[in-house]
Parts: sequence; C-alpha cells; structure tokens
Amino acid sequence: MGSARESRRDRIAVEEPLEIRLNGKSVAVVMRSPGNDEELACGFLFTEGLLKGKDELQSVGHRRDRRKTDHGNVVEVVSTDASALAKRGWQRNFVSASSCGLCGKLTIESVRLQAPPVHGDDLKVAPGVLYRLVDEMRAGQAGFDETGGVHAAGLFDREGKLLVLREDIGRHNAVDKVVGASLLEDALPLSGKILVVSGRSSFEIVQKALMARVPFVAAVSAASSLAVELAESSGMALVGFLRGNSMNVYCGAERIA
Amino acid sequence: MGSARESRRDRIAVEEPLEIRLNGKSVAVVMRSPGNDEELACGFLFTEGLLKGKDELQSVGHRRDRRKTDHGNVVEVVSTDASALAKRGWQRNFVSASSCGLCGKLTIESVRLQAPPVHGDDLKVAPGVLYRLVDEMRAGQAGFDETGGVHAAGLFDREGKLLVLREDIGRHNAVDKVVGASLLEDALPLSGKILVVSGRSSFEIVQKALMARVPFVAAVSAASSLAVELAESSGMALVGFLRGNSMNVYCGAERIA
Repeated sequence: MGSARESRRDRIAVEEPLEIRLNGKSVAVVMRSPGNDEELACGFLFTEGLLKGKDELQSVGHRRDRRKTDHGNVVEVVSTDASALAKRGWQRNFVSASSCGLCGKLTIESVRLQAPPVHGDDLKVAPGVLYRLVDEMRAGQAGFDETGGVHAAGLFDREGKLLVLREDIGRHNAVDKVVGASLLEDALPLSGKILVVSGRSSFEIVQKALMARVPFVAAVSAASSLAVELAESSGMALVGFLRGNSMNVYCGAERIA
Repeated sequence: MGSARESRRDRIAVEEPLEIRLNGKSVAVVMRSPGNDEELACGFLFTEGLLKGKDELQSVGHRRDRRKTDHGNVVEVVSTDASALAKRGWQRNFVSASSCGLCGKLTIESVRLQAPPVHGDDLKVAPGVLYRLVDEMRAGQAGFDETGGVHAAGLFDREGKLLVLREDIGRHNAVDKVVGASLLEDALPLSGKILVVSGRSSFEIVQKALMARVPFVAAVSAASSLAVELAESSGMALVGFLRGNSMNVYCGAERIA
C-alpha cells in the first residue's frame, strides 16, 4: 500500500484571525475557529481580568461594517468600565517583565493578584464520574470527528453532566469560549464545576480555569510543571492522562472521593 | 482496577517564562521548556522578521545579573541593526489590525511582504523517506518519552537524515529552536530541507517554516485551513497525519516523487 494514492477533498479545520476590541481599542488578535466569536471575546477578556462579569458587559457583537471589509473577524466589546484597560494595567498573560525578576513563582504571584485560591470550594468528584467525562465530551465533538484537528473544552457538574462544550483549533480558545458562554448566561463563577480539556494542560489553561473559579481541571494529556504549581497553590485538583479507567492525579487528590 | 491508587512522583514537563529582549527592549515573554534559550530567542526574532540572519547578530546570551533575580529567564539579543524594532514596524505574528480589514487573505499578504514563495526550490522527497521521518524523530525525543507532554520539531535533509531536533512544551517554540540553532550555525536559509512537527500544523508553524525558506512541512496531526492556504500559495508541500505508511497531502504533491 506504500504507493497507493487517493485523491479526495479532506475536511480541514478552518483557522481565521479574530480581532478582539474593548471599548474601541484593539486588545488582541487570536487565530481561532470561526463561530461563537462573542463567547470567545468575552471569555478572553474575562480570563485576562479585563471584564469583571456580565454586569459590566454593555454590548458584544461583530463590528458593523457596511463595506464588509473585516469579514466578520472583528468583535467589539463595550464595557461599562470605560477605563478598564488603563486602570488595570493590563499586560497579556499576566507576565510582567519587571526588574524584580521573571520566574514561575512570580508568574503565579501575578495571577494571584487577580484570582485568590479556591480552597473554600467543597467540590469532590467520584472516580467513576471522572472516567466518563472524556467519552461524554468526545461524543459531542463534531469538529474533531470531521477534521481530527480541533481541540475541545467541556464544562461538567459534579455528577458528570455536560453543561457547555466548545471546540476550537486552539486549546486556549476552547476554554475561553466555555467561560464566555458561561458569562453570557450569567453562570459565573464556575464554582463546583469540572473543566475537561482535550489536550495538555499548560499554565494558561489552569490560569483561565482559576479566573473562572473552576476548582477541578482534567486533561486528556500531560500537565506542565507550572500548571501543577499554580493548581496546587490554588487548591485546585489537576488530573492528566484521563483515559479509560485511569488518570494521573497531579494535585488535589482530596477532591477525588 | 477502577479503584487502584498508585502514588509516585511522575516526571512532569517543566514550563517557565522566557523574556526575549532585542537591543535592550523587551519583545516578548513566551512560556517554554528551559534549555536552548539562545536558539529560541534567535529563532523567534528571525521568524518574526526582527533579526535578518547571523550577520546581523552581535551577541546573544542570558542576561548577566549579579543578584540572579531573573532565574535565567531573560535572554538578551544584540543586533547590529539598532533600529530593527522601530524600522520594521513590528507587530507580533504579522497580524495587523488595520482599517482595511482582517482576514486570512490579508494575514497571508502580510507574511508575503517578509517572505516570498519558495517555488524556486527544487526539493522532491520520496514517500519512503517521508514515512521514516516520524519514527526517526520519535527515537530522539527524550522529553516526550519522559513526560509525554513535550512537542518536537525535526529538520531533515532530502534523504531523510536528521539534522536538528528540538523539543519544547510549545510547538512554536520547538520550531523556533530549530530555526535558531540553524541561524547560530549559519545554516540559514533552510532550502531543500524538510521540517517535521509532532503535533498539528497551524498558520504560525507554516509561517515560521516559510521565513526560514523550508519548502516542505510534515506534521503528525492535522493542518488548518490557513496553514494550507499559506503553504499552497507559497509553493510549499504540506503533509499531515504522517503515520506509518500513510499521510494526507494537503498541497504540493509535486514535491513527493
């Protein structure tokens, strides 16, 4: 079969840039799977600490553009806090390159300024519930089935009921869409909920979960050192390699019972 | 076995921030696997169009810091072009949010300003060579074997000989390290070479390859629409799902012979 060639039009995951604007100012351009753009914009701004909640959201929508030059790739968010960007001294990803040093510990401290730990959350999940989550999520992943190239993030309650499922070519975006959808439904904070991601859990995934007050993050693949440090110091459970009836518990084992 | 618990210290992929400075100015903070930091910095600056080649590189190294407050997480690059940042009107990822619109086509056009197509490159690769590349790369992936959480990028010649292999928690970083290692060895441009990446190929992966003049990108997983558009319009071959004796040829089939 080494030389067999088959010509067919494969379904490919669509990737397009999206500009996120807050109060008329461009905040970021992200490469994303089109769809649920308002959720992505709101989730991104929320997890970056630039939008405090639905109360602060005045409007969100694609830019009205009579000449249609932006191809639906610009979302405008208007918040009631007109000075959010300036006041909050925003820097992407909380990473401030100050003269006092740059390290994982400092990175975690800068997150802590915006998001206290979730030790107070009493969430405990049964292993049997955890083992079902990935299959449950996979069942709803239309994009993955079609293209094999799309990540997913799923929000579950403690009984393992799927609440929100979003797909995106970027892992971070899928999480932002879940958080944004929750914001638009006025369902934040996500206390007592479980976030499942299809790939690995990096620092940024855990940081976004913490901003939304999720006490439990489970991933299909591995976690990074900084993700574990942030989750552990925040009182979160972090699980990786959740496959079949097995998992790696990186921290927060007391939340599995 | 559902309730079996095993307590052990798993090896976890280390993730730490790295600040990249050019001529004294902070350009970016990336989350990366420590190691080969000079390569990462040079590769990042090169693929972003901020460093034109080894000729322009005056020095690169971790910041000398007597108080050791930066934990080895700052790399200083000095280029002979002191005004590189200002002159080249740099914006991260080439994505300019101008009033003339924002779309995949425009994103590709902005790349094109820095990187013409590679139609002139005569590289052709035999399928039998391609099918060996992933195993070859995997054999050298110490980080993946240990942690299961690290991406890799490998540079191969047309006979399938491995030239450079780098691992990183971020796919983009692994590619930047390969390009940076090539820059430091004065081996750029990478005409006639094949770049293999362990994950998916997004727009940014193809853009980085094109900047280094790589005419052939092969990935273990799927490609995105914008990656295919950029590769196709640049005369590159883009292959995905390179597993065993099979692959998806997204574009540039004439380079497989």
